[in-house]
Amino acid sequence: MLIPDTTQTVVAPASAPGPGAIAVVRLSGPGAFSVAKAFLEPRKAFDDPKPRSAYLLRAHEDGRLLDRTITLLYPSPKSYTGEQMVEIFCHGSPYIISRIVNLAIKHGAVEARPGEFTFRAFINGKLDLAQAEAVNDLILSESAAAHRAAITQIEGGVSKQIRKLRRRLITLLSELEVRLDDSYEELPALDLSSFREKTLLLARGIQVLADSFEKGRYLKHGIRAAIAGAPNCGKSSLLNSLLGYKRAIVAPSAGTTRDTIEEKLDVSGLSVIFTDTAGINRRTGNPVEKEGIKRTFKALKTSDLILWVQDAAKSAGAADRRVQKAIAANAQRGTAVLKVFNKSDLPPKRPPAEIAGGTSLSCKTGEGVETLKKLLAGERGRLFSAEASAVITSARHFQALLNARKELEKLKELESGKTFPFELAAEHLKGALGELAVILGETTSEELLADIFKNFCVGK
Amino acid sequence: MLIPDTTQTVVAPASAPGPGAIAVVRLSGPGAFSVAKAFLEPRKAFDDPKPRSAYLLRAHEDGRLLDRTITLLYPSPKSYTGEQMVEIFCHGSPYIISRIVNLAIKHGAVEARPGEFTFRAFINGKLDLAQAEAVNDLILSESAAAHRAAITQIEGGVSKQIRKLRRRLITLLSELEVRLDDSYEELPALDLSSFREKTLLLARGIQVLADSFEKGRYLKHGIRAAIAGAPNCGKSSLLNSLLGYKRAIVAPSAGTTRDTIEEKLDVSGLSVIFTDTAGINRRTGNPVEKEGIKRTFKALKTSDLILWVQDAAKSAGAADRRVQKAIAANAQRGTAVLKVFNKSDLPPKRPPAEIAGGTSLSCKTGEGVETLKKLLAGERGRLFSAEASAVITSARHFQALLNARKELEKLKELESGKTFPFELAAEHLKGALGELAVILGETTSEELLADIFKNFCVGK
Repeated sequence: MLIPDTTQTVVAPASAPGPGAIAVVRLSGPGAFSVAKAFLEPRKAFDDPKPRSAYLLRAHEDGRLLDRTITLLYPSPKSYTGEQMVEIFCHGSPYIISRIVNLAIKHGAVEARPGEFTFRAFINGKLDLAQAEAVNDLILSESAAAHRAAITQIEGGVSKQIRKLRRRLITLLSELEVRLDDSYEELPALDLSSFREKTLLLARGIQVLADSFEKGRYLKHGIRAAIAGAPNCGKSSLLNSLLGYKRAIVAPSAGTTRDTIEEKLDVSGLSVIFTDTAGINRRTGNPVEKEGIKRTFKALKTSDLILWVQDAAKSAGAADRRVQKAIAANAQRGTAVLKVFNKSDLPPKRPPAEIAGGTSLSCKTGEGVETLKKLLAGERGRLFSAEASAVITSARHFQALLNARKELEKLKELESGKTFPFELAAEHLKGALGELAVILGETTSEELLADIFKNFCVGK
Repeated sequence: MLIPDTTQTVVAPASAPGPGAIAVVRLSGPGAFSVAKAFLEPRKAFDDPKPRSAYLLRAHEDGRLLDRTITLLYPSPKSYTGEQMVEIFCHGSPYIISRIVNLAIKHGAVEARPGEFTFRAFINGKLDLAQAEAVNDLILSESAAAHRAAITQIEGGVSKQIRKLRRRLITLLSELEVRLDDSYEELPALDLSSFREKTLLLARGIQVLADSFEKGRYLKHGIRAAIAGAPNCGKSSLLNSLLGYKRAIVAPSAGTTRDTIEEKLDVSGLSVIFTDTAGINRRTGNPVEKEGIKRTFKALKTSDLILWVQDAAKSAGAADRRVQKAIAANAQRGTAVLKVFNKSDLPPKRPPAEIAGGTSLSCKTGEGVETLKKLLAGERGRLFSAEASAVITSARHFQALLNARKELEKLKELESGKTFPFELAAEHLKGALGELAVILGETTSEELLADIFKNFCVGK
């Protein structure tokens, strides 16, 4: 059973796990009220619940008070899932939460699978698939940009764009289909040049939306910035200085190896994942160090931006030149490079003109760190010149748009024949329509749906 | 400023940290509505909010939609704190939570300190101190017994007992005080023998409640069970077998040393902390092993119960005798010992009468593990013969009760004199009353109050 059985009533904790002041347990399905009524008192609250009224109900187990709750009752269809729903706000004790979930199960509910509430909202037509997918993105968003992309998508921003493209596809298709009809002869001949132009414009429209995926990926996952430089130039200090500037949303994650560490932080509303690299400094026979160098090269290669740190109080040495060579190779591939001259608190040993070509700062005194942050914010601006109202952040949507565009390209090939084959052309337009329908979840397979929702939080 | 400034409005996330389907942000204070109104729309919801009505409100930041929320508005005094309160249920995104908290701060709220909501409820007379303290115990309760003790205390179980004792103290005190008055001569002389008896009964009543702390500690923190035995008798296997029986509430915690590991599990509604010991098996010069042995002896000494594991398929050896000696010392101190004969799947090498004196089981096949669990449940019964309606779980309450009892004992000393000094006696009764008042938080110092609430969750 891949899709939810909506004849069943499901239950799940809906707040983050662990102890907290308040926790939420959610029920949805045709039996939500009757299940909750079995252990929440006074029962008369369930007799004729007003939509969105909060009731002070006592949860009982085996005749004993389990907790005093605030409970919201949502008669169908005025709820998140469109089904009858109950939201129980109890004390955030893992013990109480597990008892309430168990009580619901004892009285007929089954445990909700991850994302099942949103899955049901989708099934019941409360959200289309693109909107539903963004619910999880919203919860996991860690920056203003990721949040904005997700909430725009939930509010229908992406779906609206898709529906617009679809309307244009349907118009084109109808021009062909009326001519496939018996009454075709009564109509004027198809203006092939106009049809071709409209197809081209539509293909471009699809491409523009698909192109926003480049941005969307950054918005969703953040941009990757590698910190590279010779040993002891202050790479780790720079990372610390940057992290110190805004405490909000700093999530350390374990490095892939002992020698590269990653830290995420919010720079002007965009997540930037900084990678502190090492190991580029010498050629070695030691297999561990060799692996370290390999990882550093990989970090540089997968970065959107390199912060090249140099020690301004030391003349450039062989190590600097090795770093320069590695960075140059990446710059050629289009990776942005920001030069940073550290240790401005000491007498400079580099030519002033060279230092002027980068950001001079001191991780020790903090001088200049602010300037670098502003530059990073500007770099962000370069990557995101204009914030589109709707941005594709899902690889699935990107792929479907590319497929749709390919179907339209096949129309061009058909034109090379003597007569334009309406039926074949209509098939390709229908193919493109099908791809858009997959984005909205109208013709999506059960397997794909199950796959999308299984990555959701429990209780959502 | 140790106690909350209730002229200010406070804000805090109230659900557990981390991503989840739903999160809660709470506001309390005189400006709760006006702060929330500054970023929640439509604003008319705040005009004349019905108590406990749920409003669908949009949170806005800089003119952009931040999230759609379900918001509960509580006009004062019908709220948890007794103040004007707002509870915002938003998507459980750490980004959204931090933005909503920031919006509230931007519009005049200050960040709530841990426990500040409950602290305010206490200040506003919604809860006495004993009730307020139990709120945190409730959230952190991990077993049915701990939960029951906490919720009984929140519902006023402990406070009721304290108030009963207080009424009896006041009756005694008034008997003395009327005789300190000018009109004393009109009254009959104090019946000293009856007064003495009443004082004794009251001291006993206080002692009974204080004695419940022995139980209360178990209820709150669980009982400690050490698993001891010769090497390779199956101590760790037994721990695993026990843990396997009930998945619920299994919390591994790092061992104090490499050689003792602790696991907590729920046995018939009571937390049992099992300690797997090692190192008792030989005398050694190795300092690490020496430390291990020291730790094992300590684990045995601090246990409420010892599971003594022996390998039934092997004759008793020197290692078994060493363990026996260590356990005997603890049994003398009153520690309960349950003998376990492991490896019942192999031919026995111990006398049948010896095996019959313990629980025969096989961690390999699982045979007999159930029997041991029943015995443990019984052991729990022995420790908690009757579940008192109110149990002292707080060391602070325990100490105050002991102090009150000591004041009553001092009355006895006064009797040895020629005349019974009413004024001095009244002072001791007042001292005892003061101790009870401290439990209820009526005369508690700001320092102590601050100390109690600082260990609470944020948002509670």
